[in-house]
Amino acid sequence: MKRLGVFLAIMLAFLPGTLWATGVAGRVFVVEREASRLAVYDYLRHELLPQRIEGLGDMRHALMAFSKDLRHGFVATRSGQLTRFDLNTLEKTGVVATSSNSIDIAISQDGRYIATAEYSPGGVTLLDTETLKVLKRIPATFMVDGKPVPSRVTGMVDAPGNRFAAVLMEGAEIWIIDASRPEFPIEYRLKTVDDLPYDAMITPDGSHYLVGHQNSPRISVVDLRDPKAGVKEISLLEPGKTYDRNTPVKMPHMASWAMSGGKVFVPLVGEARLAVLDSETWAFKGSVALRGNPVYAVTSPTGREVWVSFSGESDDAYVQVVDTVTQKVVRTIKVGGRIYHMDFAPRGAHILITANRDNRLFLVNANTYAIEDSQTLESPSGVFGAWRAFRIGL
Amino acid sequence: MKRLGVFLAIMLAFLPGTLWATGVAGRVFVVEREASRLAVYDYLRHELLPQRIEGLGDMRHALMAFSKDLRHGFVATRSGQLTRFDLNTLEKTGVVATSSNSIDIAISQDGRYIATAEYSPGGVTLLDTETLKVLKRIPATFMVDGKPVPSRVTGMVDAPGNRFAAVLMEGAEIWIIDASRPEFPIEYRLKTVDDLPYDAMITPDGSHYLVGHQNSPRISVVDLRDPKAGVKEISLLEPGKTYDRNTPVKMPHMASWAMSGGKVFVPLVGEARLAVLDSETWAFKGSVALRGNPVYAVTSPTGREVWVSFSGESDDAYVQVVDTVTQKVVRTIKVGGRIYHMDFAPRGAHILITANRDNRLFLVNANTYAIEDSQTLESPSGVFGAWRAFRIGL
Repeated sequence: MKRLGVFLAIMLAFLPGTLWATGVAGRVFVVEREASRLAVYDYLRHELLPQRIEGLGDMRHALMAFSKDLRHGFVATRSGQLTRFDLNTLEKTGVVATSSNSIDIAISQDGRYIATAEYSPGGVTLLDTETLKVLKRIPATFMVDGKPVPSRVTGMVDAPGNRFAAVLMEGAEIWIIDASRPEFPIEYRLKTVDDLPYDAMITPDGSHYLVGHQNSPRISVVDLRDPKAGVKEISLLEPGKTYDRNTPVKMPHMASWAMSGGKVFVPLVGEARLAVLDSETWAFKGSVALRGNPVYAVTSPTGREVWVSFSGESDDAYVQVVDTVTQKVVRTIKVGGRIYHMDFAPRGAHILITANRDNRLFLVNANTYAIEDSQTLESPSGVFGAWRAFRIGL
Repeated sequence: MKRLGVFLAIMLAFLPGTLWATGVAGRVFVVEREASRLAVYDYLRHELLPQRIEGLGDMRHALMAFSKDLRHGFVATRSGQLTRFDLNTLEKTGVVATSSNSIDIAISQDGRYIATAEYSPGGVTLLDTETLKVLKRIPATFMVDGKPVPSRVTGMVDAPGNRFAAVLMEGAEIWIIDASRPEFPIEYRLKTVDDLPYDAMITPDGSHYLVGHQNSPRISVVDLRDPKAGVKEISLLEPGKTYDRNTPVKMPHMASWAMSGGKVFVPLVGEARLAVLDSETWAFKGSVALRGNPVYAVTSPTGREVWVSFSGESDDAYVQVVDTVTQKVVRTIKVGGRIYHMDFAPRGAHILITANRDNRLFLVNANTYAIEDSQTLESPSGVFGAWRAFRIGL
């Protein structure tokens, strides 16, 4: 009977009402970078769960995806290790080596496939989300003098029509992969407008794929509704302004572009402003003056505000809130040292912010701007809410 | 040992891996109207679950809301019965009588409060989502000759800033209720531009609240970012067209307006077309000719297409797909008799459609237009996916 008692106790631990008391959709996964693990925070109950998800590999720039039924989370890491875990029990349910260095991950529109972007060996890996079997590995090669040369791949996103889009860094090519066909053909290989693409993003409706280039103010844009039309170019230079040709152009993280109501807010690295572009024509519409050099700009789900983080020790504990209609700063909030990541909860009532130098995760009320909770974490960086499962391009 | 075996069997039935094998976020709840119950369909696995959620009351126009952690679903019914159930076990976890006739339900931006719109006795009921305690009942009264007169309430939505918006039918007033303050004050009472408002909607970003009026082409619009500016009027009449003054104006369901890329697609009841309005200025931009008289227009999450259903037995089994850029019909699909409800899965890979006369639920691939699955249900109408938890105004 004693063994039976232990058995019952173990079973009870898995009953709904224990781990399942709060529901997975309130759980936010926070990268503890130096510890190679994820912490789990219930933002609705202001509780850090005692469990960690450990042994995930090199978590620098680690990115997550979620299955459409919210049963599984997926983490891709710089070790090339892809890990799947159960969002309820937080137990690992699979580990796959997709390469020796992965930089990005996406889940297909229909939820059936995972795609990872590989730095080394450069390429794209496609896996089945249920079995975790590698279905295809596409080496990223481009031709120089008739010979195939390898390239790193980055900027992996899911796109409408069950496509994936990614970009070859050395290859300066955008790939659109058709995940609705069994062989995952590369449907389009499109030359970018400049060399050395280093980062990419997709607009929230999946209509455009934008690629940034190192040391260049030029941006490559593909209209995914009509890729045949090719790659168009837009510029981040302010019309009429004189630029010193010797100043290196520092480029923003593409993932940091904020879109709202026909406008795109672009944090310009090394300049104390956001550029505002028209999201239809991509024409320059103006600038928003800021307290320092911006790093990330994030739009509220309501589209009313863009929240901006900064680089540099005198500014990096602050967030500035920009009204998207008036294009003015409406609030400056001191949060915590070296802000790394900001993510809005769905519907926009709250925002989660990691402050890496202060080793803290903050929950900020996006209506009152009050810090409602904070938790101590080890070197926190990326913040991933389960709601990413329902968004295009995340 | 026999009783122990039964006990173990019951426990096993609640283990993750049984009910939880697929994750709640793939579950879609379908109203079986005449049976007063909800069917549960796993659209990712093409499976109708054996369980039903029974005894919910009068399910005509029943509406659902979901808790932000995806632990609970809420159903409001024309019997005035509010039911909460566990999205995992599908067991009821609470039943409250909020009135003798409820028409609408919404959950606050912060997830803490449920608001129901009551027909009888007319008013608004506010409840705590955790305890299900009624926190406040606001009778809907408007003043006639200095005396309070009761009104039905409809069009309940959650709005940014932790507000609720609703409209008084006989009162012809829009109410904005502040759910961030303990007394739930009515922050604004705004007169509509015409009598007899009968339905309302909020734009997907929560920026505007639109109210339709019976037998009137006039629409009341509130900019929720600036309610002090008052109620503005827009018209659904086509400029330059002559209208017979004796023809009664039949109004579309407000919930059926589809928004995409700066355009609003409005199904005009009794006319074989969609009106296209500008979503910033609300000016008339054109019409889309259709095969019959439209009922609902639903935008894909990608914004590329609007799917339209029809009234009348010769048309009501068909869906027409309109390209939002070219404003032309690109596809006509025969689905099933008397289509009642259409709901896109997040990211837009699939759409769920109920055909009431044929007693069927259809799963249609939104990329290939193929019917991938169908299930027999009893008098199916409303379709509610758990993803509603993460959307403004649902």
